[in-house]
Amino acid sequence: MKLAANAPHQTVAERVAEVADLVTVALDELLPRAEGPEARLTEAMRYAALGPGKRLRPYFAMEASRLFDIEERPVLRAACALECVHAYSLVHDDLPAMDDDDMRRGRPTVHIAYDEATAILAGDALQTAAFDIILHPDTHEDANIRCALAARLSLASGARGMAGGQMIDLLGVHDDLGQVARMQRLKTGALFTYAFEIPLIVAGASDEQCQALINFAHDIGLAYQIVDDLLDVEGTAEELGKAAGGKDAAQGKTNFVTLLGVDQARHRVAHLADQARSHLDLFGSDAENLKASVDFVLNRRS
Amino acid sequence: MKLAANAPHQTVAERVAEVADLVTVALDELLPRAEGPEARLTEAMRYAALGPGKRLRPYFAMEASRLFDIEERPVLRAACALECVHAYSLVHDDLPAMDDDDMRRGRPTVHIAYDEATAILAGDALQTAAFDIILHPDTHEDANIRCALAARLSLASGARGMAGGQMIDLLGVHDDLGQVARMQRLKTGALFTYAFEIPLIVAGASDEQCQALINFAHDIGLAYQIVDDLLDVEGTAEELGKAAGGKDAAQGKTNFVTLLGVDQARHRVAHLADQARSHLDLFGSDAENLKASVDFVLNRRS
Repeated sequence: MKLAANAPHQTVAERVAEVADLVTVALDELLPRAEGPEARLTEAMRYAALGPGKRLRPYFAMEASRLFDIEERPVLRAACALECVHAYSLVHDDLPAMDDDDMRRGRPTVHIAYDEATAILAGDALQTAAFDIILHPDTHEDANIRCALAARLSLASGARGMAGGQMIDLLGVHDDLGQVARMQRLKTGALFTYAFEIPLIVAGASDEQCQALINFAHDIGLAYQIVDDLLDVEGTAEELGKAAGGKDAAQGKTNFVTLLGVDQARHRVAHLADQARSHLDLFGSDAENLKASVDFVLNRRS
Repeated sequence: MKLAANAPHQTVAERVAEVADLVTVALDELLPRAEGPEARLTEAMRYAALGPGKRLRPYFAMEASRLFDIEERPVLRAACALECVHAYSLVHDDLPAMDDDDMRRGRPTVHIAYDEATAILAGDALQTAAFDIILHPDTHEDANIRCALAARLSLASGARGMAGGQMIDLLGVHDDLGQVARMQRLKTGALFTYAFEIPLIVAGASDEQCQALINFAHDIGLAYQIVDDLLDVEGTAEELGKAAGGKDAAQGKTNFVTLLGVDQARHRVAHLADQARSHLDLFGSDAENLKASVDFVLNRRS
C-alpha cells in the first residue's frame, strides 16, 4: 500500500487519517503477538501503541518523504518505531509516580487498564521494539541507513532528548522562557524533529535540505507545544479526553501560556507558522501539502 | 588498554576483576555527564550503572572474545551496552510496583536514593544509552556488525526476552520445571547468551563455533540461575546485600530449589557445569580460561 502522491482532492485531514491507518496496520503487524505466558505484556504493549491517536509524527515523516525520490517502506517502518517510543513515553509519563493520569485519549491509561508493573514493563518493551523494528533488514538494505535511523532515534529519546526533557519538567526548574523552551526542545521537540530526520536520512539529503526541514521541524514543534499549553488553559476535559482546565497552572507549573499570556502565546504560534512555511520555499511546489498541514496541525481542538 | 592475552599467572578472580574495572572505566566515559538542568537524571543513571557489580556478562563477552582473532574495542563497547540494559532492568525490577527492593549490592536502590519518577526515567534512559553506545561508529567500522549487535540486544531484552521473562515471573505462572526453565531462559538467560553472541557476531564465527558457545551460554546461564535460587534459600542478607532467607518461598514463588530440593538442585548445577565445559572442547586449549571460569562463577557466595 502506497500513499497517493499529491492526490489533488485530498484534504490535509484525509491525508493525516490515511497515514494514521497505514501506521496502525503496520504496527499491528510489527508488534509481537499476544501469545505465550507473557501475553499480558504484549497485550499491554498493543493496547498502548494501537489505540486511537493522531499519529502526527508519522504523518510528518511520510509527508516530508514526498519531497524526495525515496521508497515508502523505510520511512513507514522508522515512523512506526518513532510511534513506539512516543507510546512508551506516554505509558511511563502517565504512571502514578510521574504525572499520575488515569485517562488518555478517552481510555484508561495502561496502569489503570492493567497494573503498574505491567505498565512499566510494557513501556520498556515498547522502547526495545522501536529499535527492533528499525534494525531489521526489512527496513532498508543498507545497514548504514538502518544504523543512522536507530542512532538518531536513541539521541532524540534518551537523556539528552525526551527523557532529559521529562526530568526537567518533573523538577519544575523552568521559570523563564528560555528554560521552558529548552525543556520543550528536549521533551517533545526532539522526537518531533526526528520525524523529519527519517526521510532526510533515507534520502541522503543535502545540507541545505536538512537545514530547511529541521528549521521547519523546530518551528512546528515549538508552535505545537504552545498550542498544547493553550489547550491546557482553554480546553475542556471532554475535548481532550483527559483532565484539563489549566492543569499546569493548578500544579504551579510554568509553561508558555503562564509566562506569555494567552494573546502573546497565540501571536507566537501564528508567527512560528509563517516562519515554518517560509523554510519550505526551498522545495518549491513539492512542499505544498506540508505547508498546508501547518494550520491543520496548529488549529487542533484536542 | 588491552587485556593481557592468556596471562598465565592470573586467576579467574583477577581476570573477572580486571574486566570489571575496564567496563566501569569505559562506562564512565560512555554515559552522559551529570550536567545541565537534567543532571538529576544522568546522575541516577550513573549511580545505577557505575556502582559495584561483578560485571559477569561483560567478563564472559571479553573472555569468549579470546577464542577469536578480533579487536577488543567492539566487544568492550557492546559489553558496556549489555551492562546498561542489565542495570536498567535492575532499576525497574526494584521499583515498588515490581519487586519492591530497597537495597541492592549493599546500597539503596535508585528509587530510594533518588525517587520513583527519577528511577523510572533513569531506567528508560539507560536502555536508550545501550543502543546509543552500540550504534556509534566507534563500536565498529562495519555498519552491518553494529546493526547485528544492536538487533540481537533488542531481541534479548524485549518482550520475547528479558522483559517477557520478568512478566512471567510477576504473573507467577510457572508451577512446573518446564515453565520455570522457560521463565529463566527469557528473564536472565537471554542477556547471558547475548554476552557470547557479541564476540560471535564481531568474529563472524562459523555455525559450529556459534552452536558450541551458545550451548555453553545456555548451560552456564541456567546453572547460574539455579545457584541464585540456592542462595535465595541459603544466603544471608549480609552476604547478598539484599533481603534473603528464602524470599521466593516466602512470597509463594516457585523456583528451581522449591521444585527440585536443595540436593537435586546442587546436583543439577554440577551436571550443567560439566556439560558446559565439554561444549568448549571444539576450541581446544584456547578455551582453558573460559573453562576455568565455570567453577568460579558457580561457586559464588553472593
